[in-house]
This record gives sequence, structure tokens and C-alpha cells, in this order.
Amino acid sequence: MKTTLIKSLYRETKDFLDKEIVVAGWVRTIRDSKTFGFIEINDGSFFKNLQIVFEEQNISNFKEIAKLSVGSAIIVHGNLVETPNAKQPFEMKATKIEIEGASNSEYPLQKKRHSFEYLRTIAHLRPRTNTFSAVFRIRSLAAFAIHKFFQERGFVYVHTPIITGSDAEGAGQMFRVTTLDMNNPPRNEDGKVDFTKDFFDRETNLTVSGQLEGETYSMAFRNIYTFGPTFRAENSNTARHAAEFWMVEPEIAFADLRDDMELAEDMLKYIINYCLENAPEEMEFFNNFVDNTVFERLNNIVNSEFAHVTYTEAVDILVKANDKFEYPVKWGNDLQTEHERYLTEQIFKKPVFVTDYPKDIKAFYMRMNDDNKTVAAMDLLVPGVGEIIGGSQREERLDLLEKRMKEMGLNMEDYWWYMDLRKYGSTRHAGFGLGFERAIMYITGMTNIRDVISFPRTVHTAEF
Amino acid sequence: MKTTLIKSLYRETKDFLDKEIVVAGWVRTIRDSKTFGFIEINDGSFFKNLQIVFEEQNISNFKEIAKLSVGSAIIVHGNLVETPNAKQPFEMKATKIEIEGASNSEYPLQKKRHSFEYLRTIAHLRPRTNTFSAVFRIRSLAAFAIHKFFQERGFVYVHTPIITGSDAEGAGQMFRVTTLDMNNPPRNEDGKVDFTKDFFDRETNLTVSGQLEGETYSMAFRNIYTFGPTFRAENSNTARHAAEFWMVEPEIAFADLRDDMELAEDMLKYIINYCLENAPEEMEFFNNFVDNTVFERLNNIVNSEFAHVTYTEAVDILVKANDKFEYPVKWGNDLQTEHERYLTEQIFKKPVFVTDYPKDIKAFYMRMNDDNKTVAAMDLLVPGVGEIIGGSQREERLDLLEKRMKEMGLNMEDYWWYMDLRKYGSTRHAGFGLGFERAIMYITGMTNIRDVISFPRTVHTAEF
Repeated sequence: MKTTLIKSLYRETKDFLDKEIVVAGWVRTIRDSKTFGFIEINDGSFFKNLQIVFEEQNISNFKEIAKLSVGSAIIVHGNLVETPNAKQPFEMKATKIEIEGASNSEYPLQKKRHSFEYLRTIAHLRPRTNTFSAVFRIRSLAAFAIHKFFQERGFVYVHTPIITGSDAEGAGQMFRVTTLDMNNPPRNEDGKVDFTKDFFDRETNLTVSGQLEGETYSMAFRNIYTFGPTFRAENSNTARHAAEFWMVEPEIAFADLRDDMELAEDMLKYIINYCLENAPEEMEFFNNFVDNTVFERLNNIVNSEFAHVTYTEAVDILVKANDKFEYPVKWGNDLQTEHERYLTEQIFKKPVFVTDYPKDIKAFYMRMNDDNKTVAAMDLLVPGVGEIIGGSQREERLDLLEKRMKEMGLNMEDYWWYMDLRKYGSTRHAGFGLGFERAIMYITGMTNIRDVISFPRTVHTAEF
Repeated sequence: MKTTLIKSLYRETKDFLDKEIVVAGWVRTIRDSKTFGFIEINDGSFFKNLQIVFEEQNISNFKEIAKLSVGSAIIVHGNLVETPNAKQPFEMKATKIEIEGASNSEYPLQKKRHSFEYLRTIAHLRPRTNTFSAVFRIRSLAAFAIHKFFQERGFVYVHTPIITGSDAEGAGQMFRVTTLDMNNPPRNEDGKVDFTKDFFDRETNLTVSGQLEGETYSMAFRNIYTFGPTFRAENSNTARHAAEFWMVEPEIAFADLRDDMELAEDMLKYIINYCLENAPEEMEFFNNFVDNTVFERLNNIVNSEFAHVTYTEAVDILVKANDKFEYPVKWGNDLQTEHERYLTEQIFKKPVFVTDYPKDIKAFYMRMNDDNKTVAAMDLLVPGVGEIIGGSQREERLDLLEKRMKEMGLNMEDYWWYMDLRKYGSTRHAGFGLGFERAIMYITGMTNIRDVISFPRTVHTAEF
């Protein structure tokens, strides 16, 4: 079907004014008097609606159209005309309206406002609302911005495996993947389930991170990134935890922590700028109706040079304010969100990288510093949220890596291929992870992760 | 670290000639005589290597360098000079060489050729070879081309869920996802496993397709696409089956089968053109060393208007050649690869869409044709492979959809949200699926799916 997208009408208005056009879309509002009426339709191509004027004198099925329910799909023929005195810049005068698919009075998205909680129960319909059409368009644009950013810099996109036999963090709570009959699985002589009979002849889980596999490709392509789904079987029923979420994980070779932080800063600014430039209507909506600090926060990020502070320096700053915190700060403990936000909001008033964390609160693969107490890790903290990116330089020295793995009780045999990277042309390298949903929440101002995932999977919930 | 990428040296040679540069990379070959030597290094940014000349008179650690093993990581300082009489256009005269990380004689990728089978056992190292560096750069570029194609047309990228409670095809062999203790799961009174105690309070599986969820977004955004991992727990140990693979699934509203085929044709041409233009060195390598029909096949696609034939017409053509086939053709049976290839290679000599298949060999959601015997499905067949894309117009009429679901014994309650789409503003719509790995195999000439996936998951195998 050849129709004109509403986005084109807004972006290239002159090309269509006073011309005959055909537009297809869904009815958002409809009102009529005896002889004429107005319909606002949205076709999904653009945040804003198109206003249609229809008159009894030239619409043969006027009565039927006037009775249409919200949500109906229609195809409208007519002319685009300027409306200099109205709030919208133009409207379409219909000459013919076809009903593609009617809706009815049971349609759950009637004009009244609905709570986000209610809309989660109709996740298949909620992208038809203003809020969720804006959220999921931003999500799409931000995803593309990430690809564009890395591809322009020559990074290779790697699809690391989703089903895995290894646990990248050494500590994740994972989902098992199996084809065994759970009612009656094959068992060993000692009565345990015999996973050598499973689909992959072994136990397998859903990945918690593509980093370790990503490192192998970084040692070939130098600069790579992953961008795919990751999983945590955590029993955390909070507004910030989902069992299934997408993660961006670049990995760069011949690079240290400083290069890593530069990359993270450039990437975050790029994504935000891309959304601001490519979805100004959606971003304005968020700032007006969801969170009126959105523009302020994002402009602060885009226009700041991010600050840098070591964990040890940060602790020195924070202990002075310990009376303000629920959990007092002490060197050796991980920072809580309240501490992170205090640092970035009250002290630095802009994004800040905290570096060189105590080794005992970080993962085995992070590079040991010369003090033998801290590792070359970095967390990026941003106002309003706290941590948004976590990364590190990786331990490239085989002896130190092995020592650390032993200390942490990892099964070395599972990591033979990871250690191979340190035997054959090992290089300084670094990387980070950006939780994609956290970034979308930050950009849009949405406060529940369930509202930035099309069909969220959280503990107790896997609807649709 | 500030170094120059080898890709820049090839693409913007003039900017670097006779200038001091620093390059970092891995040794691919090394040879030396008493007082000088040559190293070819690759830094992963480009398919081709950079030749380094190093001489005893100005390299302080000459002896150490001369003994370096293949695979070692080095950082080279020096000048780029033209070499008009050599096979490579330029080389780098080293003034200083630092060893970043040595390799050793146990490095599995010594200069000799290795079989693809062997290289699969070292999947963490194989991207360092010519063949696999070319494969995985093409994979990355093709993935980006897909995003670019759809984003330029305003399509919204949707991340449909990986963990699902529904089976999109109504017939897939699926992987179960669970956190229950398999040795001793909670059980009902009747002794069966009690999945209401599982993480999501229900049985869940890995998705076989994002289509049904994609349709819900198409009814809001009109034009959407998914691009993510999908799973089949099929016990098929062939060169074309993987348990985990990526799929591209666009879905377009106010669109019929004809629009769907136009989109598929445009997309396929776009991806191929993008690879040909952005990776000419890799594509030449494939044509010279992997499959010397690559250019011919791809040019044929890019330059053809794809043909169209109905299934019924195709059967009429094929039965005349039944003596050529292992499986004779008969109306009502699915086409085998031998039939598909005969059609596209012998009859049409170019890509061909076969449309309007018998309803009984297609999925429940495909739109019934007026003959009540066939559905508005399409398969795209290409020379050398057979089917590469499968799609259909979807059944948008609630009564016909319900009838078909009942006939096929589906549990209607599981699909309440899918049927809602037909109640509230239903529209003509269509979509298709492209198996991403099949596309990469087609573009590169690689014949085993295990060789186009970074860490393949197939029956019995989930290494790394």
C-alpha cells in the first residue's frame, strides 16, 4: 500500500501542502457535530498525531465514521492544508475514509489516563500510548546510536553466546537451560541428575555477560563490542532489576583504564546527543510530563568534562559526611547508591569516574594495581542515578591472573581458553558494561525498568 | 595509548607517508637475516597486514625481536615509506620495537594451514586467522547494514523477549529455562514437577521467534523489526543447523504480501551491497580462497529483479522434472532443497519468490487466501542455497484466525493478547524472517554454520 507517513508530513510539510495524499493510521481521538467532525490519527511513524477534518457533504459513510471507536484503523484520502490560527500547523481535509479495522468500546485505551501499573498488564497495547511510544522509539534510536558510534570507530560487533557453560562473573545467579524431562530426568549411579544426557552433554546456563568471550575477539580485532541480552536469576523485585536485560560491552586492546574511561564518556555523550537530535518531540514530552529534570540532567552530561577520583580519595570525602548516610562509609566496603549520588550530585555536580577499587569487592579479571590492594576498575556515576557504567582494565599477566583465580576459588579448567589469551600475545586491554535499560531510564526519566522493556521478565512474571 | 590503526595507513596513506607513527599489533609472520628482518603485523583493524622492516643498526633489542614467535603482541615506532617495486604499497621502517606480550612455540596458529574442523576447537583463537577475521568482520558489517537499512526507513527496533511462556510457531522444540533444583524439584500432589514454584511461577522456554510480540509493536509503530537470538532444541547435527542463532524479523502494518516481498528484496540487496562496498578486501578473499562463485552469486542478486511464482505454478514446473529429484514433487507437500534449487538455478536463474503455499504446511497465523486452500506465504529462494527468507501476510480477521487455531489444536487462552490485536484496530500486515547466519554463509561462501558463529551451540556442543 502506498501511503504517506505522518512523519513526512511534519518534516517535509511543503512537499505535501495542498496535494492529494493518502494516510493510514489508528484513531486516537474523535469528536463530531452534526455535519462535520475531527479525528486525530497516529500512524506510529511520528510522535504527533495528524488532525483529520471530515464533513458530511463529502464523506459518503459520514455516520459510520462519526461513530468510530478510539483505536480503529482507518485509511484517509484527502488534502493537506495549512491552519495558521490553530495549535497544529496543518490538518487534512478528508475526501474519503475507509475503515481498515474497527475498534470497540471495550478497547482498554480509552481517552482517560492510565497508571503505568495498569498499562503493564496490557503490555501488548501500551506502545499505542504517548508515553510508551516515546519510550520505545527512544529505545530503538539509542540502540542504533550505540551501533553507529562503535561502527564509525571501526569496532567489530560480536555476538557472544547466550547459552553458556561458564559463569563470567564467577558468582552469578543463573538460569539453567535444559531439554531433560524434569519429571523424570536420567540419573547417575549416585542418584544425581545426569547432565551428560542433556542437549549439550553438559550443564548449561543463560549468560550473565559476554565479556570473557568478547576479550577473545578483542585479542584478534583489537576493538570490539557486544550488544545482546543477558540474564540474572536474582530474586530482586525492585524497580531497577529485571531477569532479562540488554547489555553493551566494548573491549579494547592496547588500551588501559584511561582509554576505557575516554571511550565510555564519548559513548554516553554520543547516545544522548543522538536521542536529543533525532527525537526532539519525544524528549520534550519526557521533560514536560515524565521528569522535568531530563533536559537539565542530559545537558549537564553532554556539556561536562567528566570528573575523576580514586575510590580512596572518594572515601576520604565521604567519611566526612557519614552523618548524612544510612550506611556509614568505610574503606573496603562497596559504595551504596546514597554515597554514589552524594559524590556526583553534591561534590562534583557532574558525572564522575571512581577508579581503583579494593580488589576484594571486584571481579577476578580486573588488573591488580602496584599497591597490591586495589584494582584498575572504574565506575561511572551520574547525577540522579549513581552508577551507570562499570568497567576495568583486565589482568593481562598470566601469573597474577592465576593467583587471583586460585584465591577466589575458581575452577581453572573451565577458563583454559581465557588463560590462553595471556599466553599468546597478551596485551593491555580494558572494557566496560553499560546496562542498556538503565541508560534508557536515565534518558527518558522513567523510574521502573518494567516500563522500558517491551515485555519485561522479572521474578514471578513472564507474561506474553 | 595513541597508535595509528593499520586501516588508516591503507585508506589514508598520504596522511602518513614519511611521518613518524606508532603501530600496535600481533605478529603474523617474521623472518630475519643477520642484520635485518621483516615482520608482518595485523592489528585487527584491517584485513591486510603491515610490513615492518627492522635493522640491527637502529633496533637496540634486535636479537630479541628476531626471535619473536608468531602471535606476539608488539608496539612499533618508525616511519611509513613507499615501496613502489614491492607487492605491498608501503612498509614501515622501525626505529623502536617494544614487546607488549610474547607468544611461544606452542601457539596453535603457526604459519601452516589448519582445517576448519581443527579451528573450531580453538574458537577463541580462530578470529586471528585470515578466514575467520574476514568472516566475523562481514558478520559485524552485515549486522550494522540491517540496522541501518531499517532505521533509515523509520522502522522501530524492538527487543522482543528471549525467555517466553509461549511457543510462537505452535510446534517448536524448545529449551526449558528454570531455576528449580533438578535433583529434587518441588512436586504437585500427583507427583509432577510444580512449575508454579519456578522463578517465573510458570513454565518458560527460550524463544523460537519474536514474531508474535513483534506484531503487537507493529500495530503501534506500523513498521518495526526485531534482531536478536532465537533457539531451536532440534537434534539436527547438520552443517546448517545451530541451536542458537540470530534472526531478523520485520513486521509492517497496512501492508500485504506484495509489500512484504518488496521489503525483503530491498533489504537483501542493501546488506550485500553494504558488505561489497565496506569490505572489498574480505570479499575478494572469499571469492579467491573460499568459494569462487561468491561475486557471481552476489552480483546476480544485486542486479536482478527477483522473480515471482506461486507454489501451484512452481509445482506444475517441477513435476515435469520429477525424474531428476530424489523426492518427487506433489501438490500439498513442502518443497525440498533440491526442488528449491532447481527452480532458482535452472528455471529462473535468479532469486525467486514462491508464494501462496498450501495452508496445511504453513503456520496458523498466515492469511487464508480466497481459495481456502492456500495462504499468503512467501519463501525467497536464491541460487546456491534455496530458501533464505520466509514470510507471510498475517491473518488479520479474528474469526478466520480463531478457526485456524482451533483446527490446529492451539490453546487459545495462551494467545489472548495476540487475538486482541484483531479486536482493536486490526490492519493488513505482513512480515518475514531472515536467518542471519544463513545470510552470512551465503555472502561469505562458508558452508558450515559453525564457522560463522563466534562460539557455536549445536547438539552435544557448548564449549567456551
